[in-house]
Amino acid sequence: MPAQRADARRNYARILAVAEEEVAAHGADASLEQIARTAGVGSATVRRHFPSRSALLEAVFRERIETLCAHARELEGAEDPRAALLEWLRALTVYAACARGLAVCLTQDSLADEHDMNACSTRLDEAGTALLRRAADAGAVTPDVTISDLLTLIAGLVLATEHHPDPSTEADRLLRLTVAGISPRQ
Amino acid sequence: MPAQRADARRNYARILAVAEEEVAAHGADASLEQIARTAGVGSATVRRHFPSRSALLEAVFRERIETLCAHARELEGAEDPRAALLEWLRALTVYAACARGLAVCLTQDSLADEHDMNACSTRLDEAGTALLRRAADAGAVTPDVTISDLLTLIAGLVLATEHHPDPSTEADRLLRLTVAGISPRQ
Repeated sequence: MPAQRADARRNYARILAVAEEEVAAHGADASLEQIARTAGVGSATVRRHFPSRSALLEAVFRERIETLCAHARELEGAEDPRAALLEWLRALTVYAACARGLAVCLTQDSLADEHDMNACSTRLDEAGTALLRRAADAGAVTPDVTISDLLTLIAGLVLATEHHPDPSTEADRLLRLTVAGISPRQ
Repeated sequence: MPAQRADARRNYARILAVAEEEVAAHGADASLEQIARTAGVGSATVRRHFPSRSALLEAVFRERIETLCAHARELEGAEDPRAALLEWLRALTVYAACARGLAVCLTQDSLADEHDMNACSTRLDEAGTALLRRAADAGAVTPDVTISDLLTLIAGLVLATEHHPDPSTEADRLLRLTVAGISPRQ
């Protein structure tokens, strides 16, 4: 029945919105029960839409990851390949600083059983590779840096600043240090 | 009685040696029961020497932190201040990659109740400051980098590579990227 389907869609959207907030606040360990309570639905409804924690996390991250991928595609045509890459890395850093679970996923992408999370990591990998390649072709990137290195470095910045009073600002500041280098050879 | 004291000292040294291995393998969550079993002593003996997990961790880290501090003091007289700083950062990275609990401590040093861990962080801060200042005076460091930034960046590298098959090699490689910069301004 159309009314039921519309109801289910509204529930899905509400649960996802609440889950995004809870995961931003508590990371990958966010309580599914708390999500159900805040969304005003039963735990069974949450489970019907998201059969596992990782399905929920993937949905939470996937929305923004698609946005980040779209952002990367837009930047592929930018005039300055270095600025384009850095803008995208910055967007990723600031988002990941608000969604700790994602940083943990990015560091675990070699674990075969984390296939749900791999999807996120693989999507970001693909999206970032084009930007990195253009910047590297323009000679704007230190040789041999891979997109996987960049994702790992960003995951590290985010993990190391999660106890900071203003994590995204601090992670962004440390990203700029990492881009410039602590002590680049003159 | 001297014999008893010698026995206690031997127990302390054995427990500490085992604890270093267990913490290197399992991080700050290493099992105290497993440490007691491997050291061939009772849990009560472990608790007599180390009344809390944080007391044990502090002892585990403190030994190596003192070594790292001594290393820093030796390097203060080195001819090349840049090379001296980088050698020390590298030693810290490789050690922290083998002792995950330490990286977590370095990221939490603003938490007031982690006073035991602060001791480790404060010691490293003091030891590294002299090396950083000399390198900065020689113009070899990007302006405004603090020792706290360096410790946070290293903690991040270590946390982001802990699932890698060879964490210390990978963390060291990423440290070199961070030193050189992903994309330093020419």
